[in-house]
Amino acid sequence: MRERDLIARLLAPLATAPAARGLADDAAVFAPPLGRELVLTHDVLAAGVHYLPGDPPSDVAWKLLAVNLSDLAAMGARPAGVLLGLGMSAAEDAAWLTAFAAGLARGLERWNVALWGGDTVSGLAAAVLGLTAVGTVEPGTALSRAGAKPGDGLWVSGPIGDAGLGLAVARGEAPFDKALLARFRRPEPQLALGQALVGRATAAMDVSDGLLIDAGRLAAASGVAVTVELGRVPVSPAAAARVAAGDAGRLALATAGDDYALLFTLPDGIEPPAGCTRVGAVAAGAGLTVVGTNGAVIVPERLGWEHQL
Amino acid sequence: MRERDLIARLLAPLATAPAARGLADDAAVFAPPLGRELVLTHDVLAAGVHYLPGDPPSDVAWKLLAVNLSDLAAMGARPAGVLLGLGMSAAEDAAWLTAFAAGLARGLERWNVALWGGDTVSGLAAAVLGLTAVGTVEPGTALSRAGAKPGDGLWVSGPIGDAGLGLAVARGEAPFDKALLARFRRPEPQLALGQALVGRATAAMDVSDGLLIDAGRLAAASGVAVTVELGRVPVSPAAAARVAAGDAGRLALATAGDDYALLFTLPDGIEPPAGCTRVGAVAAGAGLTVVGTNGAVIVPERLGWEHQL
Repeated sequence: MRERDLIARLLAPLATAPAARGLADDAAVFAPPLGRELVLTHDVLAAGVHYLPGDPPSDVAWKLLAVNLSDLAAMGARPAGVLLGLGMSAAEDAAWLTAFAAGLARGLERWNVALWGGDTVSGLAAAVLGLTAVGTVEPGTALSRAGAKPGDGLWVSGPIGDAGLGLAVARGEAPFDKALLARFRRPEPQLALGQALVGRATAAMDVSDGLLIDAGRLAAASGVAVTVELGRVPVSPAAAARVAAGDAGRLALATAGDDYALLFTLPDGIEPPAGCTRVGAVAAGAGLTVVGTNGAVIVPERLGWEHQL
Repeated sequence: MRERDLIARLLAPLATAPAARGLADDAAVFAPPLGRELVLTHDVLAAGVHYLPGDPPSDVAWKLLAVNLSDLAAMGARPAGVLLGLGMSAAEDAAWLTAFAAGLARGLERWNVALWGGDTVSGLAAAVLGLTAVGTVEPGTALSRAGAKPGDGLWVSGPIGDAGLGLAVARGEAPFDKALLARFRRPEPQLALGQALVGRATAAMDVSDGLLIDAGRLAAASGVAVTVELGRVPVSPAAAARVAAGDAGRLALATAGDDYALLFTLPDGIEPPAGCTRVGAVAAGAGLTVVGTNGAVIVPERLGWEHQL
């Protein structure tokens, strides 16, 4: 099948927004809402690196959208449109692409975001999928990692570590668990929460590489010291049943990646959003301190995922 | 070297615009100029597909920027910022990345465009480089492929086929020629021309897959018939010296890709921009007609690059 025919058959029906111009022009044209700033992010998922070649293509499309929209959520933005960079190997045949497009369609609909355009490339050794997501915020209101202040509380939006356990399930290294697997393959960007944090949170980011490493990054960006109390980290029942009791298990969960929860700081006296958990505190100084359930400081061997060059 | 350190050392110094937020946040924040529409494009270059693994990294960066800015040029847009998706294999070592960043820096400066953010991924089998370019236009003025009208002239901005000959040089299939090689490796997006065509051209696009195939696409998008006269196609002296005389040589040049000239249609009576050449005409009907130097219709075996799935 010719590339152009594939695009016409699978992707053009998803590109219904006026900005996409029916995928017939060299670029998309978007008229931003009056008086809005734009929030733009681009994340790449590579087969064999970020997902397993055997993962269902519809889930891969979902995750590609979700991880980018999670960046918009972390900034408090409302999604508007996306551009897709679809790099295919011989493994991405017509059946794979049909399922991928179906998953993409579901995600676009669920999160009310438009497909504006992009590019397709074939002949790669393995699939490399890029997505650019564009959202909007009211001027000057975008959240940032840099505003945490001494005295703030450190909060997280939901259970930590499920996706890491789901990855082990996907790899066949752990017994099957549908819910954990879904947390790895189909993360949920916290868009409504991110928008609700605008004007309330002093700093925010999404947890993509592990709670501890990301908390350290928030501390560095804000020029403050951050303490995470392991005993306060929210853990799902499914995760609790799979890891060791006590600090060792909590550490494993807090250093796993792919959660896409939001991590944020709130000044004292600001009402926390429903469902969120206070996991630590901000103080003057620098760096990350991890405190175990007995109140003693722990120095973990690793904090999360740091991709090596 | 850690990914984060690499980004800090090589890319962060290029991300000086306020929109980039020092690459420290989850996404970029861009305040569009008041009353402007945004033009957005995303193109991918893959090692071994779009460029040769041995191509100089600074030229690869240049071309990655140039092909995306060429899409903005085709829409008449003014570039504002870019997001980079840098997918690396083991071959993209520190020396490669340093040279790549240097080439990127030169391109950003030359075309006055900001690096806003992006993503880096390592562990690929071969490099896959994505770039999203964002530009601005006055509302309703973006050029399109769809507006050509019967009676318009078909114009092209510069010599056709040099880049295809440069590819043969890069592959070692043709004698060395510095100028032709540069036309393949360092194309020049026609940004000033694109902006000058706003309000004058009825349709425009860039020539990326070959003059003939792209002229056919313009005809299809506009719902008109387009004729290209081979004898009018502008050919550089270097190219003329390398291809057969007459229609066979012209056909080879007009079906080679990577020119990144602009192809556009002008109504009669509209002054053509300097340096452009009229290569054909628009009429009522459908499809592409190719006419040889003797006035007879030619049916080429191929029209240009159509990437197979």
